[in-house]
Amino acid sequence: MKLLQERIRQEGLILSDTVLKVDSFLNHQVDTKLALEIGQELARRFADRRITKVLTIEASGIQFAMATGIALEVPFIYAKKKKAVTLSEQVYSAPVHSFTRQETYQVSISQKYLGPEDRVLIVDDFLATGAALVGLVDIVKEAGAELVGVGCVIEKSFQQGRGLLEDRGVRIESLARIASMSPGEIHFIDEEGQTGERAKENATC
Amino acid sequence: MKLLQERIRQEGLILSDTVLKVDSFLNHQVDTKLALEIGQELARRFADRRITKVLTIEASGIQFAMATGIALEVPFIYAKKKKAVTLSEQVYSAPVHSFTRQETYQVSISQKYLGPEDRVLIVDDFLATGAALVGLVDIVKEAGAELVGVGCVIEKSFQQGRGLLEDRGVRIESLARIASMSPGEIHFIDEEGQTGERAKENATC
Repeated sequence: MKLLQERIRQEGLILSDTVLKVDSFLNHQVDTKLALEIGQELARRFADRRITKVLTIEASGIQFAMATGIALEVPFIYAKKKKAVTLSEQVYSAPVHSFTRQETYQVSISQKYLGPEDRVLIVDDFLATGAALVGLVDIVKEAGAELVGVGCVIEKSFQQGRGLLEDRGVRIESLARIASMSPGEIHFIDEEGQTGERAKENATC
Repeated sequence: MKLLQERIRQEGLILSDTVLKVDSFLNHQVDTKLALEIGQELARRFADRRITKVLTIEASGIQFAMATGIALEVPFIYAKKKKAVTLSEQVYSAPVHSFTRQETYQVSISQKYLGPEDRVLIVDDFLATGAALVGLVDIVKEAGAELVGVGCVIEKSFQQGRGLLEDRGVRIESLARIASMSPGEIHFIDEEGQTGERAKENATC
């Protein structure tokens, strides 16, 4: 998705070879128009798959699951990271390790909202280590639902997440695939699967 | 908002005099069409106020801030509940006590995304104790931005949140105001400010 790649070049802050901040337009302050376009593009890529529900994880997946649910005209569910006092019924759950926060938490969803009749698209903001997404894939399997695929906004293709999902036979669509990056420089894999132009960018612009 | 009140009657689960679960359509599984209509209604109520940004708090405010931002054609910001490794710059922050989770956490937003030039509408799913919303009001004040008001999806009018916000001179618009509830029964304050019809409902229907 060229529009998204351009925006990452313009506004993304590359703090290291692995840390990219996009919180001016994607996951802290959110450009609602861009988020809607991201949802439309993810919906287009899975248009023929008769999806019944979009699944994501709180918090930064919510705006993209919402946008994709709007485009597909289906509800979305967001997995919770802690069992709250008001979440008293039976849940599907999986442990997830966050490398950003350096902690392991439990993700869970109510068993009432996912079942064998569902065809599920998982959506998230980042595919990097794959930890959260593998947890969601396991939850879909536990529910007996059909997993249609995983749609991500940004993929760090140099990390192991894609491989972990592909090992499980999961179809992945990422709208911006980063081949490599370092402060001042970012290389995308283009939509045909080739490494894109090597453009030097000022990471702070 | 009659459509919302009807949906709460049909699908809300009243677990006690203070706990209402709406996670089948609002804050775990989300009816995207209803969420968009909620956003349109909140936007309509603040239509003439030249809002530049919608502000909410992760996680369950995000879908309604997104919907309101779509309707107003402005970005939204969601305050974070913990200082993440990647949130390295200066932040505005406030402490918030969650009665649901029985813990106190820090909410924060980057100083880059809110300033004296902004006119802010705060949006959240529930107004109950008001703890989270008072924290957001304090953050808007700290940023020197203009607070246009607070828009909530559901208000538990029998709790102190509205009073705390009114003491600070904040305009509040809530789409469903609950006067009282108990398992099997819910009473709304209608849109003209009167106590609505006393309808007995089966809390599990």
